[in-house]
Amino acid sequence: MKERVLELLKKGYPDFVSGESICQSLGVSRTAVWKHIQALRAAGYDIEAVPHAGYRLVNIPDRLYPAEITRGLQTAFLGRNVYHYDQVESTNRTARELAARGVPDGTLVVAEEQTGGRGRMGRGWFSPHGRGIWCSVILYPAVNPMDAPPLTMLAAVAVARALRRAAGVEAGIKWPNDLLVGEKKICGILTELSAEMERVNYLIIGMGINVNIDRHEFPLELREIATSVQIERGRRVSRVHLLQNLLAELEYWYRLWEKEGFAPVLACWKELNVTLHRPVRVFTWKESWEGWAEDVDADGSLVLRLPGGEYKRVVSGEVSLRAR
Amino acid sequence: MKERVLELLKKGYPDFVSGESICQSLGVSRTAVWKHIQALRAAGYDIEAVPHAGYRLVNIPDRLYPAEITRGLQTAFLGRNVYHYDQVESTNRTARELAARGVPDGTLVVAEEQTGGRGRMGRGWFSPHGRGIWCSVILYPAVNPMDAPPLTMLAAVAVARALRRAAGVEAGIKWPNDLLVGEKKICGILTELSAEMERVNYLIIGMGINVNIDRHEFPLELREIATSVQIERGRRVSRVHLLQNLLAELEYWYRLWEKEGFAPVLACWKELNVTLHRPVRVFTWKESWEGWAEDVDADGSLVLRLPGGEYKRVVSGEVSLRAR
Repeated sequence: MKERVLELLKKGYPDFVSGESICQSLGVSRTAVWKHIQALRAAGYDIEAVPHAGYRLVNIPDRLYPAEITRGLQTAFLGRNVYHYDQVESTNRTARELAARGVPDGTLVVAEEQTGGRGRMGRGWFSPHGRGIWCSVILYPAVNPMDAPPLTMLAAVAVARALRRAAGVEAGIKWPNDLLVGEKKICGILTELSAEMERVNYLIIGMGINVNIDRHEFPLELREIATSVQIERGRRVSRVHLLQNLLAELEYWYRLWEKEGFAPVLACWKELNVTLHRPVRVFTWKESWEGWAEDVDADGSLVLRLPGGEYKRVVSGEVSLRAR
Repeated sequence: MKERVLELLKKGYPDFVSGESICQSLGVSRTAVWKHIQALRAAGYDIEAVPHAGYRLVNIPDRLYPAEITRGLQTAFLGRNVYHYDQVESTNRTARELAARGVPDGTLVVAEEQTGGRGRMGRGWFSPHGRGIWCSVILYPAVNPMDAPPLTMLAAVAVARALRRAAGVEAGIKWPNDLLVGEKKICGILTELSAEMERVNYLIIGMGINVNIDRHEFPLELREIATSVQIERGRRVSRVHLLQNLLAELEYWYRLWEKEGFAPVLACWKELNVTLHRPVRVFTWKESWEGWAEDVDADGSLVLRLPGGEYKRVVSGEVSLRAR
């Protein structure tokens, strides 16, 4: 009901909407309308109330509220069901708990702040309040776990395209799924899965996008290696708008992957990548190699040409780009 | 402390152990010893108490108690930490909850009965009280999820060898991991994993072995397709003894896999298999094929020769054996 009051105020924006018309539209009392207005104010909506004129929406808070995300969202299933939190340890962790309870396909978990945000290789992820898109998407792809790794590269394609189209940031992809502007990271993706050997139970794609973070707000150790949309564009942008674009991109590429497999995703990944045809160092948990990033194969593995001339196929790991 | 009283009674078996000596060995009062004896009796241990003579162990209950499993167990880590339940929904489910809490590597979850035992492809698994080995092992292998599937075939090798050595049952393996005697199933294995794209968080190998189940005890729909150790051997066998052997086999093959990879496991799997070099039908979630089971490749995939002569590699699915 609170959301329906908000809808009416948004329709009336920037004019006043009379209390009487809200009462009639929703079939509730003036006292009830007043209670919902108070609840909306508590959630951060700036609403002016003038006797005989009614209510007027003055300002929408910079929050990733479900009502804001789903209004005008161009997707069929992705992000249609949203769990929003002010603070969580990590959205992936919350998503795991929700997935185990069987929430709908495409459910989005989003938080204003993560107290224990995590990146790949067990690293932390700086996730200050209201400054980024810290979110996880829950999917139930009907595949066996060996076919799941391409989905993490698919997510990178979706984020890169959303950053380009909705925020004007020319992000490139470092294999397999880090998003860079220049040499600095703007987004990290952590994909997790629960599976039997024959099929995936659920897949969680966690994404952390640095949006409205100023350079001096990054911890010292991140200042030279991290960036944000705000830093790149010189102004704050709407997180809701960027997230809506991201969800639309994700759904588009996911549906395409379901129909046509990894090939079209990989083709787009290659167009957006900044890893290939240059010298790199690749680290895995056990080893590291220096070589020339020759190609990414049909499974998403990085094909490295070693100094001796032989080729090395790397299934997973961390790439450090080297001077050409 | 209860376990230490039991140890003393087992050492003294079949003779009486005086209450006084138990008090002195453990440094506790006679009242305390009596309480532990009562607790052991409540757990099913038949203990005779005779004034001036002491206590005598008459019979050990047919239960998979941790103290019974770990006594004389020939492993370094597998099954050293045991969670025993009288009844669970499924041991895999309980194991998932324990793994998420970070119990030690090699932890064993075992139940006398499963109320919702599950097999592969979402099927149920008949798990009556005290009649089988319904258990799950929790492992933390340092691999990426694409390298995990061979572990389910490794488990089949371990169970087949334990059945042959400890129970005298000539079980064969149907790809990838069903255990058959003749055409009838004696054990099913359900492997589950939680992973990031770069590494497995935890792996759970669930095993259901039909041990002391009489033919008439199977539900009608299972009588022609399931068997048990008791049916094959014509007598009941010790579940503890069989489980100890299974744990030792599992640890042996797991350590070998860690050191040398899948090749030696696959070689043994091939020796024990009943799938290859015969006509089969293979079902996956979406499709099915009829053909000749030609080989299993280095990844564990089944290589099928189709009637037209071309080869089909099947990563996961269900095999139905056909008349030669």
